[in-house]
Amino acid sequence: MQKTTAVPKGFRFATAEAAIKKPGRKDLSLILSDTDAVAAGMFTKNAVKAAPVRLDLERIKSGRGRAIVINSGNANACTGVQGMKDAAEMTQLVAESLGIAEKSVYVCSTGVIGTPMPMDRVRAKLPELASAAGTASFDDVAAAIMTTDTFPKILSVRKKIGGKQVTIAGICKGAGMIAPNMATMLGFIITDTAIDRAALKAALSAAVKTSFNRITIDGDMSTNDTVLIMANGAAGNVPVKAGTPDYAVFAAAVAKLCYELAMLIVRDGEGATKLVEVIVKNAKTEAEAEKAAFAVANSMLVKTAVYGNDANWGRLICATGYSGVSVDDSKVDISLNGLMVCRNGMATGKDIEANDRLKNPTVKIIIDLKLGKGMAKVLTCDLTEGYIRINAEYRT
Amino acid sequence: MQKTTAVPKGFRFATAEAAIKKPGRKDLSLILSDTDAVAAGMFTKNAVKAAPVRLDLERIKSGRGRAIVINSGNANACTGVQGMKDAAEMTQLVAESLGIAEKSVYVCSTGVIGTPMPMDRVRAKLPELASAAGTASFDDVAAAIMTTDTFPKILSVRKKIGGKQVTIAGICKGAGMIAPNMATMLGFIITDTAIDRAALKAALSAAVKTSFNRITIDGDMSTNDTVLIMANGAAGNVPVKAGTPDYAVFAAAVAKLCYELAMLIVRDGEGATKLVEVIVKNAKTEAEAEKAAFAVANSMLVKTAVYGNDANWGRLICATGYSGVSVDDSKVDISLNGLMVCRNGMATGKDIEANDRLKNPTVKIIIDLKLGKGMAKVLTCDLTEGYIRINAEYRT
Repeated sequence: MQKTTAVPKGFRFATAEAAIKKPGRKDLSLILSDTDAVAAGMFTKNAVKAAPVRLDLERIKSGRGRAIVINSGNANACTGVQGMKDAAEMTQLVAESLGIAEKSVYVCSTGVIGTPMPMDRVRAKLPELASAAGTASFDDVAAAIMTTDTFPKILSVRKKIGGKQVTIAGICKGAGMIAPNMATMLGFIITDTAIDRAALKAALSAAVKTSFNRITIDGDMSTNDTVLIMANGAAGNVPVKAGTPDYAVFAAAVAKLCYELAMLIVRDGEGATKLVEVIVKNAKTEAEAEKAAFAVANSMLVKTAVYGNDANWGRLICATGYSGVSVDDSKVDISLNGLMVCRNGMATGKDIEANDRLKNPTVKIIIDLKLGKGMAKVLTCDLTEGYIRINAEYRT
Repeated sequence: MQKTTAVPKGFRFATAEAAIKKPGRKDLSLILSDTDAVAAGMFTKNAVKAAPVRLDLERIKSGRGRAIVINSGNANACTGVQGMKDAAEMTQLVAESLGIAEKSVYVCSTGVIGTPMPMDRVRAKLPELASAAGTASFDDVAAAIMTTDTFPKILSVRKKIGGKQVTIAGICKGAGMIAPNMATMLGFIITDTAIDRAALKAALSAAVKTSFNRITIDGDMSTNDTVLIMANGAAGNVPVKAGTPDYAVFAAAVAKLCYELAMLIVRDGEGATKLVEVIVKNAKTEAEAEKAAFAVANSMLVKTAVYGNDANWGRLICATGYSGVSVDDSKVDISLNGLMVCRNGMATGKDIEANDRLKNPTVKIIIDLKLGKGMAKVLTCDLTEGYIRINAEYRT
């Protein structure tokens, strides 16, 4: 995984300032592939979906795409029929300026909910954004899609696939719901790998399952969460097909990229001082492991205990117990950063020592249910006064 | 509902100090009926159940009871086989001292999890507790069962049933999980009403459903949650049977008592500054209304927004949307303390005015889904820096 960004061939970028929420920062971005790309996407499961999500859900059925236009500052959610018109118009203006098909353009929005998109300002800037394609970097886009993220999130990786070097690069923005307004998890992955549609979709789906779908800041799932991937084939490799060794390499690379991007989101959780890995193992099934791990990761009591360096494993076994999965507490082992604090459901007497282990900026919680083979890891952060302060402020 | 406590006939009380966690306060209590009473109970659904809960679950099958012994300071949870022995011994010592059947004695514990019950100290005090029956008041018991509750919770009500005046009184302690240790919701209701077993069970079940089971401080369900009711018939009324007008009067009185006790728990939530009523109406079913209301009530973003007087209804519709129930956001209306902030899923433009409405110490959120007839009300509190401070402290 390279921390500096290697950018796939055949993509260009642009950013612009439309003062969507307020002036003084880039809030419009464009990701453009030089040629028609294979595309796949994953979207929020929230029943209340923002207008751009609804538009993209339709368009992704084609499995193709050329461009993504992204705005921060306004989520275009809970904006009714006008919101749908505005989302479509954003793609239409970009498509017209670039001379590409409107249906090949995706749109993603993040920011305030329930406020109409300021289309007068956005409309005026979209042709400028389109004509600027190639003047910005992928890093610039990573910065322009931020809301209250404290740092841009960008990673890339190079692999040898089908006799060629391919590049996969990704950016994302904060998962927390952020004051003064609701925010969103957005992720964009681009690659010059040649790959067929089914394989790309499968790779993204598998990667998101164990990365963006296994993180939680506060348990709130936004109306706008979106991950899109575009693969334009510019690397000239033999196209990757599902079930081949090349597919395995590609899928593993995408999974690792998504996992590390997801970890950056958690590290940047609002007010967070620690990254927390909650691993539930030997649950009856993987689904049960995931359910238990989320219950623990979302428990305010667990998150405040981690913040306070309090090895209060009672809160861990308690959250596991109410998660709704099969638990026999007389079998449960719990360790905190390698120190076993609970064996077969009872104290090992190591609590004081464990308090010290919690002072580490990364806290690894392992809960062993000893009931089966299911395993899942969920990433989260601690809960601090900082989170309350950020989220209790007035929208201004 | 009387704020001063009218106590049902034929019950006696005692408290004692066993220094279970630390000296200086009453931490053992006894509720004793002079005669064998009809009894019913509701217990935590947590898969990890404390020893006293497991014991009581067996004994409640008899539908009878004479006494309840309660300790604070230690939950006797995650204490293995020894914990089960200790719970049984507590009831045995009380039963022997009182000359009653061991199986007619219930035991409830609240406090630290994973620490063996200090039976040397408890054992020494139980005969003293039993022989002191009649020397304390129900109010004294309400105080002795507290952990970090800031005030005792006790209410009573009188009704005319079957030609006689009957009294129903209840006490409870905090629902929040409380630093430095996990705490628990315990509720005890006593009445001199004569009532048959099936009717008592039905009345308690219905009452708990819309009271103690519709409150949330932080979404965490403890290993020890218990509500017990004993009805000894000392009022001499014609015994109440299910389906009769007398039953309706009795069940309504128990439901109201439980609801108001539950409200006291929420008012005493850790760090809370506001009581929040989340009402979801016109959901497809009552179960869907309850599920959506809990999603909203447990959302950290909602709770921090209420704390910050921020009428951020986007967080409300968002939580409703991810709750997993049927939602058509183009139909959703949301009002905050009587002011509609969202109509048919879109802003009404009243946010600023609504911010002011949130300054009220009680905040009523009504979410109208317009999809059916299901309604549920969940009580919660706001989320503040105070909660974090309380829960992040070391156990000491």
